[in-house]
Amino acid sequence: MDFAHSSRAADLAERVRTFVDTEVLPAEEVITADILARRARGADPWTVHPLIEELKTKARSGGLWNLFLPAGHEGAYAAKYGTDGAAGLTNLDYAPVAEATGRSYLAPLVFNCNAPDTGNMEVLLKYGSQGQKDQWLDPLLDGRIRSVFLMTEPGVASSDATNMEATARLDGDEVVINGRKWWSTGAGHPDAKVGIFMGLTDESAPRHQQHSMVAVPLDAPGVKVERLLTAMGVYDEPIGHGEVTLTDVRLPAEAIIAGPGRAFEIAQGRLGPGRVHHCMRLIGLAEYALELACERSVRRVAFGKPIANLGGNRERLAKARIAINQARLHVLHAAWKLDTYGTAGSLSEVSEIKAAVPQMACDVIDLAIQLHGGAGMGPDFPLATAYAGARSLRLADGPDEVHLGVVARHLLKPYAAAAAAEAGAR
Amino acid sequence: MDFAHSSRAADLAERVRTFVDTEVLPAEEVITADILARRARGADPWTVHPLIEELKTKARSGGLWNLFLPAGHEGAYAAKYGTDGAAGLTNLDYAPVAEATGRSYLAPLVFNCNAPDTGNMEVLLKYGSQGQKDQWLDPLLDGRIRSVFLMTEPGVASSDATNMEATARLDGDEVVINGRKWWSTGAGHPDAKVGIFMGLTDESAPRHQQHSMVAVPLDAPGVKVERLLTAMGVYDEPIGHGEVTLTDVRLPAEAIIAGPGRAFEIAQGRLGPGRVHHCMRLIGLAEYALELACERSVRRVAFGKPIANLGGNRERLAKARIAINQARLHVLHAAWKLDTYGTAGSLSEVSEIKAAVPQMACDVIDLAIQLHGGAGMGPDFPLATAYAGARSLRLADGPDEVHLGVVARHLLKPYAAAAAAEAGAR
Amino acid sequence: MDFAHSSRAADLAERVRTFVDTEVLPAEEVITADILARRARGADPWTVHPLIEELKTKARSGGLWNLFLPAGHEGAYAAKYGTDGAAGLTNLDYAPVAEATGRSYLAPLVFNCNAPDTGNMEVLLKYGSQGQKDQWLDPLLDGRIRSVFLMTEPGVASSDATNMEATARLDGDEVVINGRKWWSTGAGHPDAKVGIFMGLTDESAPRHQQHSMVAVPLDAPGVKVERLLTAMGVYDEPIGHGEVTLTDVRLPAEAIIAGPGRAFEIAQGRLGPGRVHHCMRLIGLAEYALELACERSVRRVAFGKPIANLGGNRERLAKARIAINQARLHVLHAAWKLDTYGTAGSLSEVSEIKAAVPQMACDVIDLAIQLHGGAGMGPDFPLATAYAGARSLRLADGPDEVHLGVVARHLLKPYAAAAAAEAGAR
Amino acid sequence: MDFAHSSRAADLAERVRTFVDTEVLPAEEVITADILARRARGADPWTVHPLIEELKTKARSGGLWNLFLPAGHEGAYAAKYGTDGAAGLTNLDYAPVAEATGRSYLAPLVFNCNAPDTGNMEVLLKYGSQGQKDQWLDPLLDGRIRSVFLMTEPGVASSDATNMEATARLDGDEVVINGRKWWSTGAGHPDAKVGIFMGLTDESAPRHQQHSMVAVPLDAPGVKVERLLTAMGVYDEPIGHGEVTLTDVRLPAEAIIAGPGRAFEIAQGRLGPGRVHHCMRLIGLAEYALELACERSVRRVAFGKPIANLGGNRERLAKARIAINQARLHVLHAAWKLDTYGTAGSLSEVSEIKAAVPQMACDVIDLAIQLHGGAGMGPDFPLATAYAGARSLRLADGPDEVHLGVVARHLLKPYAAAAAAEAGAR
Repeated sequence: MDFAHSSRAADLAERVRTFVDTEVLPAEEVITADILARRARGADPWTVHPLIEELKTKARSGGLWNLFLPAGHEGAYAAKYGTDGAAGLTNLDYAPVAEATGRSYLAPLVFNCNAPDTGNMEVLLKYGSQGQKDQWLDPLLDGRIRSVFLMTEPGVASSDATNMEATARLDGDEVVINGRKWWSTGAGHPDAKVGIFMGLTDESAPRHQQHSMVAVPLDAPGVKVERLLTAMGVYDEPIGHGEVTLTDVRLPAEAIIAGPGRAFEIAQGRLGPGRVHHCMRLIGLAEYALELACERSVRRVAFGKPIANLGGNRERLAKARIAINQARLHVLHAAWKLDTYGTAGSLSEVSEIKAAVPQMACDVIDLAIQLHGGAGMGPDFPLATAYAGARSLRLADGPDEVHLGVVARHLLKPYAAAAAAEAGAR
Repeated sequence: MDFAHSSRAADLAERVRTFVDTEVLPAEEVITADILARRARGADPWTVHPLIEELKTKARSGGLWNLFLPAGHEGAYAAKYGTDGAAGLTNLDYAPVAEATGRSYLAPLVFNCNAPDTGNMEVLLKYGSQGQKDQWLDPLLDGRIRSVFLMTEPGVASSDATNMEATARLDGDEVVINGRKWWSTGAGHPDAKVGIFMGLTDESAPRHQQHSMVAVPLDAPGVKVERLLTAMGVYDEPIGHGEVTLTDVRLPAEAIIAGPGRAFEIAQGRLGPGRVHHCMRLIGLAEYALELACERSVRRVAFGKPIANLGGNRERLAKARIAINQARLHVLHAAWKLDTYGTAGSLSEVSEIKAAVPQMACDVIDLAIQLHGGAGMGPDFPLATAYAGARSLRLADGPDEVHLGVVARHLLKPYAAAAAAEAGAR
Repeated sequence: MDFAHSSRAADLAERVRTFVDTEVLPAEEVITADILARRARGADPWTVHPLIEELKTKARSGGLWNLFLPAGHEGAYAAKYGTDGAAGLTNLDYAPVAEATGRSYLAPLVFNCNAPDTGNMEVLLKYGSQGQKDQWLDPLLDGRIRSVFLMTEPGVASSDATNMEATARLDGDEVVINGRKWWSTGAGHPDAKVGIFMGLTDESAPRHQQHSMVAVPLDAPGVKVERLLTAMGVYDEPIGHGEVTLTDVRLPAEAIIAGPGRAFEIAQGRLGPGRVHHCMRLIGLAEYALELACERSVRRVAFGKPIANLGGNRERLAKARIAINQARLHVLHAAWKLDTYGTAGSLSEVSEIKAAVPQMACDVIDLAIQLHGGAGMGPDFPLATAYAGARSLRLADGPDEVHLGVVARHLLKPYAAAAAAEAGAR
Repeated sequence: MDFAHSSRAADLAERVRTFVDTEVLPAEEVITADILARRARGADPWTVHPLIEELKTKARSGGLWNLFLPAGHEGAYAAKYGTDGAAGLTNLDYAPVAEATGRSYLAPLVFNCNAPDTGNMEVLLKYGSQGQKDQWLDPLLDGRIRSVFLMTEPGVASSDATNMEATARLDGDEVVINGRKWWSTGAGHPDAKVGIFMGLTDESAPRHQQHSMVAVPLDAPGVKVERLLTAMGVYDEPIGHGEVTLTDVRLPAEAIIAGPGRAFEIAQGRLGPGRVHHCMRLIGLAEYALELACERSVRRVAFGKPIANLGGNRERLAKARIAINQARLHVLHAAWKLDTYGTAGSLSEVSEIKAAVPQMACDVIDLAIQLHGGAGMGPDFPLATAYAGARSLRLADGPDEVHLGVVARHLLKPYAAAAAAEAGAR
């Protein structure tokens, strides 16, 4: 259990952190104001601010590009689109990098490391055919297009994926797709070109082999972004969260990723690191919120004192410090476990952090909001948006309760087995 | 300590509740969708949907109008604009009415009982000159215009009102106003015509007699709504929360309410019942969120069970039931105390509920969001907006921490006095 | 919903409160020290300190005796053993009396109002035969003997009473009792003479008619107090919590209370008011802990300030103030509901307070401990004992979780019914 | 930041863990029962059960002795009394060893690694004269005598050590000691022979150089153990927590450790690792409580299900799993920081864990108690005692609030400095 980051990772994290603080955060302020202004005057907010493309170019030329590419899967693609052709980072080494990108909601985009593109790229890298790679993976790694993940559905409890109602039926050498998906993150981006869709193919197959993943061109006939959703009032432009209908979308069967019935297998591999990445970024977000809170609380004065010194504020700040520190170590441990024992060997650890870190981040951000007073609720600080983001992650990729259930199952398994064995022996 | 509502109050509450559920909530859905659609297509969202005026007319003709008018201050105005010319309601009797209006963010507007108009009308009723009443109170009670409260400032910690930087200087027989205010609720409404402004008049006066309240016509030269603010992403159309600059706004000195230096006195009287009203409405809002949560949790199925029966959900619902019930009784008690002992005699009680109820409401709404999954975060349920509203009230009209400080002061006063007396005797 | 106590109740509560503060609390200090000293020198702690009998006499002569006797059941017994022969108190009127007795763990004993005797006396009053009344109820009401309740068992989860393993089998005109009970409160008292025992009589009867209650003389052959249990280190002398074995205890069948199979019916009636009494006393206990906390925190000085003014202490004290106030109103409401709608009509309300109040009391007492530092943990203040008592009540008479389940069931019932009806209609 | 334990540490931890589970825990059950029985029959509980001496011998012969001896201070003493004469363990390497000893309240004693002896031995090792070492350190390391720490006082808030009232005045070549100390852990043990006393020597010296530490023979004239204190009802036999008076105790000035005025310096060095050790043991204690909780909850059945599957129990168990895992990593990090940057370089980290871990342990143990029902409160499981121990540590060695204050100070320092610098520049 060695949590020391490699010197390469430490260097990358430091550079990403500096880039975020000196380039991205100032740009974020400009872009946020621009989107607000656009909305206020009725202009289209679903455009990509030119600053973002500038920052992407700068990040890429600085070697801070596609850093999410995991160790062991880099091969030709890392050489072509990665920083330096070197090996991908382990999850542990990626942690401080991802943490640094968590400080700004735009940063992941700037470094081509944002969800759901990272997960989609991993899926294509690990499970895609050469054709799928050529068509979608290359431009994604190149930052030319973006993607969405078409999984969650409005009509059923998506915490239980077997509830899924959308279908991907085989019809000769074609696959026919129908369904309604939502919370399809990325659907607002003008460059979004492909969706990874999950649907039911064959209910006669074993429970976890009934569904397929399909790479769906978003301009295919029958695909429609019905609307873009607010999440606690936030649209997350220019990414956006879409509600998408797919009506008799016909694609060649080769569009199915890795063949029919493998969706659960692919999803599992996709979601493990994805959840860890989310948690890493939330650590960065919480840390940034705490910085803002400290900054504010030593400068604002009420009743003759900096508000840091009023009531329980110092204690709350201390508890936030403690909570972030514990959570960071927890995430590093899960990353290390994932690197060392693989997804199947770290199910409890990944669920532990997924159940704990978003709530921690919500709590810290909420404290920062409270210390900012009205300003914390409003558009001049990134805190309300940060809260919405952290709150969403108590639901996205499995609600807290589902992950607690996974943790409990692993925890109780040996006890239940022993009790059952004894009962059997009696 | 008799919490039984009068039969008149019980009848009114029942009728308001029915009106809200059958008329306002369905309209809210339509109006919310309309505002979203307007924003999506770049149309002006700061218009008043015709349904609102229809509902106002209907409420008024049904005798459900200006019910906030307090007992003892009704006089001619109640006869003219009130329900039936009868006596105003006590705080205790108004509680179930206000609770019922808390179920929809539009309802208070429909019944002419929304903040900050109610508080402003009370100020004018109690402290306004006849001229101020004629100019502003009549049309407000009539629902023809709306008002804003210009108190909070962006540059200082407004939890301590003595920090205030805005000024209302006397210059001959004029008062000259300068300052920047924000979170000026109501500033987005096209009918907003008057602001009750608070500013520094004379720093040589005793600490709580330095400030004045002024009735400022919003079309006076020098008044500018700079922007409308989001609160956790929510604009609260058509009310809106404005940032307003006042630059050398000159008004006749008669615009000062009750004369110079009385702002703290007026604010105190205004805020007591106002805080209780907020808490009453939050009880209604939390109750409604719990209803939605129950509804959802018995119908959505995951892992083969209604989600109500998964994990700790039932326990959480039970705890929400308990929390609302305790909070409701607490608010009723504060209202009864306010009726019986006046504002000065119920400072601790009012601060107790103001410190406790918004957090309770946030917790219940957050639970409802979690049980709704992604839908709870999005625009199809009123939960995200409800959360933003409840969260705002942990800051508005005094942050939680300030109210806890008031409670502690009252609690410790006799102990500290006894300890001091003993120390003195030694 | 009128929570005003009658003037008689207000007067009684005031007198009980004064008696507790001036007589019982000083005696408690002496008696606690005496028990500690006895234990330290190896003397028998299971004796009744003469001060207790003195106080009982004084309380009785002051008319503060058997005040728990409920309205409607007073009859001849109230005239004989009650205060003044007047009608018993409603639950609402008993609330402030019970609250006052909650300030000292000895007070309930002094007023002949302590658990489990009160519950046992109620059972005998309502369900007992004349013979049982003559034998047990008279001396109990007279304060000459004490009783225990033999319900909880060590071998099974007693939260589900159908788990019970002890038996009360009919054998001709005798009943034969076998089983092991524990947490039999009162078993340490030298005057404990009778136990109300619950056991399985006939497993072929309907689920809730299989068990019987039996009045068991504690000196009957086969009854043995195996040991007295500590609850978080506390023995609660001279009451004590016993583990009791009953081995082939033969009694005439008339010892069965109200006839075989009625134990669940009797238990239900016994536990409703009993739980409310517990909650009332806990309010008093929490209030007393808060008083001690306030007292201490204005007098102890650290880092140059009274500790009340350090860190978040004032906020925590304010939150304790709020929590007690909410809980008290909640308990009053449940008492009022119980008076107005009976046990069956107030199941949710009673479970609500039983699930909420003990935890609240634990939290307030824990705060008081923390503010007392080491002294709070030790024997010189009643706080550690208070904590043990409050903590026990998160388990006794149904653990928190069972009561939350009851609340949830009542809350969800209409929603589940509606959902089922709709599903049926489809 | 490498948290991997050395192979030696891993091996030691494994062996200690096995020894605790197979030898100490079974003995603990016997000894606890014996003490209860002694108390019940009025026999002296302040004796050392022969099993303890047997286990000490066995542990020592197994090389599991004095493992607390820190790296760098082992020298001759480690060779003489340590495991194998090898280097002492780093704090990081000691962590899993201490964690294993935390599972039983007797285990630290068995391995000669219990507080306050470990801290006292460290003080003597680092600051003691050769005479003090010969007289006290040798027999302590040899397990022949025990020691107490005479610091906390009943009359003042000991969270602020400058409050201290006890004195250690110089009088010629003697030091004269007066004062009243309590919570002097170890004072009940028949082998307790020496106390490390802290008192005021010279109030004219700088604030943190006014106090001295003195090695006081407990049989010196004027030293009296007035009584042994319960902590939440627990005596912790055979260690015990004493209240000790020291009246004109005259000792040669050489009894002062490291010379007059150095008490704060010594205390600081003593308390850093001591606090980390406490936290390590609490991790072990919480882990053990969770094991018991899991064990119980899969075996007890209520309402037809193992209680693990009722209500929110699984979620609570999962949260306990998460909390322990986070806390363990946090403690390891603090230990690593202490090893790498010394006490002065890890003040925040040590305070972070001291503020967080005892509360976490209380929460986990409380859950275990709740899942055990009445049995959890009583004497048959170690849970009530565990709770008392964990709860004490929210006060001992600095209450939570003091440590949160330290964390906040470190957190805010740079922000406050920057704000001050800017304010100065204006």
